[in-house]
Amino acid sequence: MPPSFRPLDASESPRFAQPSTFMRLPHSRDLGRLDTAIVGIPFDGGTSYRSGTRFGPREIRAQSSLIRPYNPVLRVSPFEVRQAADYGDVDVVPVSIAATYARIEAEIDTLLTHRVFPVAIGGDHSVTLPILRAVAKRHGPVGLIHIDAHPDTWGDYMGEKHFHGTPFRRAVEEGLIEPSRAIQVGMRGSWRGEDDFDFQERHGMTVVPIGEVKARGVASVVERWRATARGPVYVSFDIDSVDPAYAPGTGTPEVGGLTSYEALGLVRGLCGIDTVGFDLVEVSPPYDGPGQITALLAANLVYEFLSTLPPVVPA
Amino acid sequence: MPPSFRPLDASESPRFAQPSTFMRLPHSRDLGRLDTAIVGIPFDGGTSYRSGTRFGPREIRAQSSLIRPYNPVLRVSPFEVRQAADYGDVDVVPVSIAATYARIEAEIDTLLTHRVFPVAIGGDHSVTLPILRAVAKRHGPVGLIHIDAHPDTWGDYMGEKHFHGTPFRRAVEEGLIEPSRAIQVGMRGSWRGEDDFDFQERHGMTVVPIGEVKARGVASVVERWRATARGPVYVSFDIDSVDPAYAPGTGTPEVGGLTSYEALGLVRGLCGIDTVGFDLVEVSPPYDGPGQITALLAANLVYEFLSTLPPVVPA
Amino acid sequence: MPPSFRPLDASESPRFAQPSTFMRLPHSRDLGRLDTAIVGIPFDGGTSYRSGTRFGPREIRAQSSLIRPYNPVLRVSPFEVRQAADYGDVDVVPVSIAATYARIEAEIDTLLTHRVFPVAIGGDHSVTLPILRAVAKRHGPVGLIHIDAHPDTWGDYMGEKHFHGTPFRRAVEEGLIEPSRAIQVGMRGSWRGEDDFDFQERHGMTVVPIGEVKARGVASVVERWRATARGPVYVSFDIDSVDPAYAPGTGTPEVGGLTSYEALGLVRGLCGIDTVGFDLVEVSPPYDGPGQITALLAANLVYEFLSTLPPVVPA
Amino acid sequence: MPPSFRPLDASESPRFAQPSTFMRLPHSRDLGRLDTAIVGIPFDGGTSYRSGTRFGPREIRAQSSLIRPYNPVLRVSPFEVRQAADYGDVDVVPVSIAATYARIEAEIDTLLTHRVFPVAIGGDHSVTLPILRAVAKRHGPVGLIHIDAHPDTWGDYMGEKHFHGTPFRRAVEEGLIEPSRAIQVGMRGSWRGEDDFDFQERHGMTVVPIGEVKARGVASVVERWRATARGPVYVSFDIDSVDPAYAPGTGTPEVGGLTSYEALGLVRGLCGIDTVGFDLVEVSPPYDGPGQITALLAANLVYEFLSTLPPVVPA
Amino acid sequence: MPPSFRPLDASESPRFAQPSTFMRLPHSRDLGRLDTAIVGIPFDGGTSYRSGTRFGPREIRAQSSLIRPYNPVLRVSPFEVRQAADYGDVDVVPVSIAATYARIEAEIDTLLTHRVFPVAIGGDHSVTLPILRAVAKRHGPVGLIHIDAHPDTWGDYMGEKHFHGTPFRRAVEEGLIEPSRAIQVGMRGSWRGEDDFDFQERHGMTVVPIGEVKARGVASVVERWRATARGPVYVSFDIDSVDPAYAPGTGTPEVGGLTSYEALGLVRGLCGIDTVGFDLVEVSPPYDGPGQITALLAANLVYEFLSTLPPVVPA
Amino acid sequence: MPPSFRPLDASESPRFAQPSTFMRLPHSRDLGRLDTAIVGIPFDGGTSYRSGTRFGPREIRAQSSLIRPYNPVLRVSPFEVRQAADYGDVDVVPVSIAATYARIEAEIDTLLTHRVFPVAIGGDHSVTLPILRAVAKRHGPVGLIHIDAHPDTWGDYMGEKHFHGTPFRRAVEEGLIEPSRAIQVGMRGSWRGEDDFDFQERHGMTVVPIGEVKARGVASVVERWRATARGPVYVSFDIDSVDPAYAPGTGTPEVGGLTSYEALGLVRGLCGIDTVGFDLVEVSPPYDGPGQITALLAANLVYEFLSTLPPVVPA
Repeated sequence: MPPSFRPLDASESPRFAQPSTFMRLPHSRDLGRLDTAIVGIPFDGGTSYRSGTRFGPREIRAQSSLIRPYNPVLRVSPFEVRQAADYGDVDVVPVSIAATYARIEAEIDTLLTHRVFPVAIGGDHSVTLPILRAVAKRHGPVGLIHIDAHPDTWGDYMGEKHFHGTPFRRAVEEGLIEPSRAIQVGMRGSWRGEDDFDFQERHGMTVVPIGEVKARGVASVVERWRATARGPVYVSFDIDSVDPAYAPGTGTPEVGGLTSYEALGLVRGLCGIDTVGFDLVEVSPPYDGPGQITALLAANLVYEFLSTLPPVVPA
Repeated sequence: MPPSFRPLDASESPRFAQPSTFMRLPHSRDLGRLDTAIVGIPFDGGTSYRSGTRFGPREIRAQSSLIRPYNPVLRVSPFEVRQAADYGDVDVVPVSIAATYARIEAEIDTLLTHRVFPVAIGGDHSVTLPILRAVAKRHGPVGLIHIDAHPDTWGDYMGEKHFHGTPFRRAVEEGLIEPSRAIQVGMRGSWRGEDDFDFQERHGMTVVPIGEVKARGVASVVERWRATARGPVYVSFDIDSVDPAYAPGTGTPEVGGLTSYEALGLVRGLCGIDTVGFDLVEVSPPYDGPGQITALLAANLVYEFLSTLPPVVPA
Repeated sequence: MPPSFRPLDASESPRFAQPSTFMRLPHSRDLGRLDTAIVGIPFDGGTSYRSGTRFGPREIRAQSSLIRPYNPVLRVSPFEVRQAADYGDVDVVPVSIAATYARIEAEIDTLLTHRVFPVAIGGDHSVTLPILRAVAKRHGPVGLIHIDAHPDTWGDYMGEKHFHGTPFRRAVEEGLIEPSRAIQVGMRGSWRGEDDFDFQERHGMTVVPIGEVKARGVASVVERWRATARGPVYVSFDIDSVDPAYAPGTGTPEVGGLTSYEALGLVRGLCGIDTVGFDLVEVSPPYDGPGQITALLAANLVYEFLSTLPPVVPA
Repeated sequence: MPPSFRPLDASESPRFAQPSTFMRLPHSRDLGRLDTAIVGIPFDGGTSYRSGTRFGPREIRAQSSLIRPYNPVLRVSPFEVRQAADYGDVDVVPVSIAATYARIEAEIDTLLTHRVFPVAIGGDHSVTLPILRAVAKRHGPVGLIHIDAHPDTWGDYMGEKHFHGTPFRRAVEEGLIEPSRAIQVGMRGSWRGEDDFDFQERHGMTVVPIGEVKARGVASVVERWRATARGPVYVSFDIDSVDPAYAPGTGTPEVGGLTSYEALGLVRGLCGIDTVGFDLVEVSPPYDGPGQITALLAANLVYEFLSTLPPVVPA
Repeated sequence: MPPSFRPLDASESPRFAQPSTFMRLPHSRDLGRLDTAIVGIPFDGGTSYRSGTRFGPREIRAQSSLIRPYNPVLRVSPFEVRQAADYGDVDVVPVSIAATYARIEAEIDTLLTHRVFPVAIGGDHSVTLPILRAVAKRHGPVGLIHIDAHPDTWGDYMGEKHFHGTPFRRAVEEGLIEPSRAIQVGMRGSWRGEDDFDFQERHGMTVVPIGEVKARGVASVVERWRATARGPVYVSFDIDSVDPAYAPGTGTPEVGGLTSYEALGLVRGLCGIDTVGFDLVEVSPPYDGPGQITALLAANLVYEFLSTLPPVVPA
Repeated sequence: MPPSFRPLDASESPRFAQPSTFMRLPHSRDLGRLDTAIVGIPFDGGTSYRSGTRFGPREIRAQSSLIRPYNPVLRVSPFEVRQAADYGDVDVVPVSIAATYARIEAEIDTLLTHRVFPVAIGGDHSVTLPILRAVAKRHGPVGLIHIDAHPDTWGDYMGEKHFHGTPFRRAVEEGLIEPSRAIQVGMRGSWRGEDDFDFQERHGMTVVPIGEVKARGVASVVERWRATARGPVYVSFDIDSVDPAYAPGTGTPEVGGLTSYEALGLVRGLCGIDTVGFDLVEVSPPYDGPGQITALLAANLVYEFLSTLPPVVPA
């Protein structure tokens, strides 16, 4: 059975034409036919510095129109082996993180109930927690591959439990991720205090600071996470793991980061991992300049991730 | 029978969410149900100075998400009285004006054959000629209300007959518009020579220079076109009729133009005219700045035009 | 007694030098000496479209450095007749509108308790409600002069009572403003439905749409509000009342608005009104372009407002 | 004898092609053939706030490529009746206002010695003083039409006599302009103190504040300067006289200014005045946004000025 | 005989002064004296995604003004050993690729007939084909060093043979390049299908994907092309070979590319190759941000290329 | 004794709130309590190409608000071990380099007299000379670590001794630095002539071109400067040493430079050096794009430098 959902053909319809969807895939919520859903979560209400990620899904859709269907590095046409479409966005509640969390969890839960793989596009990093709630409900505590400049395991923020700096602490506390199977890659920048990573140490999470990535290379990191993130694994990619030169359009940029080539290598290194969900977060278009290179990189990283997924053989 | 096509409700889905269509209307090509089609024509291959209008439809869709459904000045909810959707774009051929003209004419012809009113979003002004060809095929020579800084009645351009400076000369030559029923409003800027408007004079077209708009006001202009543009009338609105302060994102900006308030007033003045087609052209997003105010104004002008259309009573 | 707080002298310290405060006034929280506080409220968590107003106070401070101390139109040096300083910002809670409201109200209450006049700089329009709560606590229900493109009297938003589209409905409901003494100026744009202004009609609020401002002029509007807004009056100026050409950097821009000259005229028209508080809201710097003209206009409007305040004669 | 210097023909060479000169005129320093020289003065070393006007001539050249040769309002083809070319720039000394003044004066003196009319493009307003020195050397004290937001008659600046806020005070002190024949139009914004215009009053200069322009109109201003600026007159147009909506790219923007249409009207009102020199100053491209509308307006104002010059009949 | 064409001396004329030419060289078409011509080809009519490269030559000229004459890595002053000037642009026909091709071929043919080395600045990559036609007419089929993210050997595009994705397929088909002596470096990104490089394989072209450049280094690539590109060689450098972080201003950006340092190394590796022509294409200034770093890099790459050319000993 | 000066706590006051100071430290000139002063020098009057660095201190302050207090790489909380505050700016004289030099020297002298370590933020590179004058007055001729793309040892500029290309030549000439203990790192780009580095050779200064940094790595460079820059050392970091991809916002960008990660490594390599003063210069915000990544990197480099300073043990 051939796939029902394919990007528009650029030799028939120019890349800049037609309403923007991710890679110009059909916009569909047909849970009976989909096995993979690219779903936007345009929420920036959990942001502590620059806002604007609410426009991340819109701009990533726009910039994704340049991507062609065949991945020559991974030797796959992801839309030939899976039924993937642009699912549209979760209708978040801009002024309430609590109401938004409920909506995200419900929507991801619906996808998982229908055995549809969620590929989420943020939005700020606070959106990962409700995704993980839905994922853990289905899969139990999962492993974690978390690529980011920041650990996002801080404690409360001005009296609030939820913002984009806490999702992974909350996820551990709620038993959504199994810390011994969790790895955080690309950590860098200044800390609030000496004890910023005590949580990780206490819970046995693996931390790979940027210095290790730079000194040992991407392949070494991939080795480490293959050793660490066993079993079903959730993958969360914060675009601020990448250096601001390559990704200026983000909410809390951190200098001294990954290059785009390193970022691509990391995502390609997910091949063969038993991933159960993915998000790409923290793209803030108002800070991205006319070339919108952050959104373009993000779109490519999502595409690379899609290319790592195994084929779905129809029943 | 209630309308089938309505914008997403912003109290249920935030304005920045979901794939962008014009005013977040459904994306539909259902010619059996539509009576009005908003159709993008993302072609900038006829441009003599700044390119970039190929991204006009994409950006106007994005910015239109701010517009609410009820028009309090014209006292109408256009989507309650007509079946209007985002029809998507004509798949233009970026490297060939000839091939593009054929595709535009065919698509508009299809719309008109199904009695669907075409509301086109450019693209550069060269796209108006093939629209007029389709319109005239159905309606015969039409009247013209043309709001612009430039007459677009120049002769050949570097040996070529078609570019964004010639559509109205060609249209007169081809008998698509009836010059005595044609009026051009907002003309200004420097000319190539003393005889730039000889064509108009020779053919009896009415010309309203910007000085007259400023001195006598919008109401007076509306009076003039009511007197001139009798019978079926095509309306073409070039965004560069508006001053660059209000519309910097355009291909051949001309200083000393309309304000946004005057532009709105002109479009509202189309109420009661027997319009048979409309285009809004020359929005070039790369030159529009982070606020994208040109695309926003263009989206509003399209909405105002939609609000001037009479209700369609289903058979 | 000479004033203690004066802007840095630009003939001694260049305009671009020294840490930015409003008009390069001293940064002070000395409630014993101040009679007027310019206070930032950098909250954009109540925003329904473009975020970014959290950076409004920072950018308005920066752009205000161009303003000189003497106002030749109103013939006053405001800092010679009042003790005004940059009070700094309310430390809002970016992820919680409820917690933020509590902090704003408390801070404004502190100012009013010390008989310090609050001049607030937003932030989105949701910040006005807690200011009004503090104001009404001190002054009882107040009159209102509200300059804006939008009424901001909508009902709930996605199940939430508070966002930047509801403060004035809430304020009427809570008895903070006296509707018969309230006037809204500059209203325009599309509505959600025919009944968007039923609330105003029902409560006897005065509404001046943009068409009336354009047709009758600023002086006529000033006449109307002098007749309407008797007694202690709160003034709220939403920068989106001004046309996007003059104020592109805002969250929900609306075409067809005020010119900067009209906006200045309106603020100058507040002379002699018994104002008890003021805010300037909705400046969103990420959408403002390199010239930051929106922040510059906002800074000037705040300065003009300061110039309308009567001298404070020390006891 | 036909003119030797004509813009490239846009029907033979597209507007964006070929190295940029003003209106794509020949670049020439042939003093034997020229009667009018467009000369850039890229100096921003006299600037008190935003720098960047050193790139004014480059960008105005670029944007001028859109202008066509025939002026339909003034009914003239300026390059048919005068020998005008792009003279290139004065090689200013960026780090020394004194050395720069010497070079400007020498270059303008050379032009005047050869009876070539100087049309200068700044640069900041400090460049006007050395031009006036050369002009007065040839013509004696001249009349002045000065269109600006600011009087530029302040005293010393941080111990220095020369910066962009003092040229006209210095010019009066040095006897270069005749104050009774001087008129300043468009004055607005805040002042340093009540006595900012005492100098004007003391010397009998005429001042037209923006309020008068807005209330009485451009024609009335033109009347006033025809009555005031008798005899040989120098004209200085500071782009910040125009509102930041129309001219964001400038060093000391002032809200509440001229529209582009008013600015064009003022320049056209110079027809018949015995002008002996002209400058257009204070365009700062880094603050102008992608549309570069300030440079475009400036280029058009220069062109309009050229169109007001009388034909030169060859001997 | 000393060279006649030298850049302006920055110690006499500041870098931002005078009309922009490449490196502020004289603008000359004196074929009798030149041996090297820097020629702009401002055509973007062959572009499939973002347009804007028509402004490439203008902006590269502007940014080149920062480059100094002596190359310390290659130890040469290129303008001391060759007679090189800014030749100006080919007057392309923006609306016709066919008419443009004829003009480009004719202009390059004229240069080659006069034994002037063509250094072309695009414009989009479609301009390379007519250059190659002229080159092959003189030199026969040439070798090719092609640095790019994309192979540009696709087949027809929407029914058209010519656009910026086909020049090298057409060149092989027309016998302009000898595929066995052709090498393509930097290939990356997604493909249309598995067979995108079948053409190369079938014709024996050498392909160096980005992974090989990153893994083995620039020196290794240079080795490979020295082995491959024997005899007269044409060099085509597409700026999108460089990563969008370094070159955001381009039409079809591709993430994961060269760094600027690698790009410089590659061009320096051309020393000693028998090059017969060069182009630098696909710089699109509207997408380049205020720093215009893409145009700056492009200008430097052109300068580096000029530095690799052997001295011309006058007869 | 605990330190008196600490950044605002981001868990109590959001990062975007309160008037901007460096890292939101107190603004203080209390020479009796400070041991380290971050002092802005907003002067761009010594610039030969793009101006705008006068806004460097303002923007670096703004962007520094993202930095947290603990440095995990150097394992230090700099504000716990030193008394550091934002000292404000030197009130430079924008139009006079001579007057500015006097003010800078006096201010730095005051700091040094009070044994306060000066951490200066430019401004263009011309500001380093008067700092060095004050430093040498106290410490005698010092060693120099100079990280830059350019040597800044050129001779006179258009007849002037001082501009941003000469400070280090002047410093050697004036005996402020000891050339044998001076090292310049990151040199690259084109030269004026073969002899650009003769001065260095003649005086025994050590030069490390970019090629050596790239080939041997940061650690090797650090080795070299530990061997070279003995004794009291002044450190000057020109942001244009970093590649324009990472630092587009600068006055004379030079392609092919350091990555941000390399830059951080170099600054960290200053640990243990006996530094006596530091500057970070040449950040020009108008050229930095909406993400302001250059200012952000600069702020981080200043913070890294602060982290390398030894603790001050109170007497």
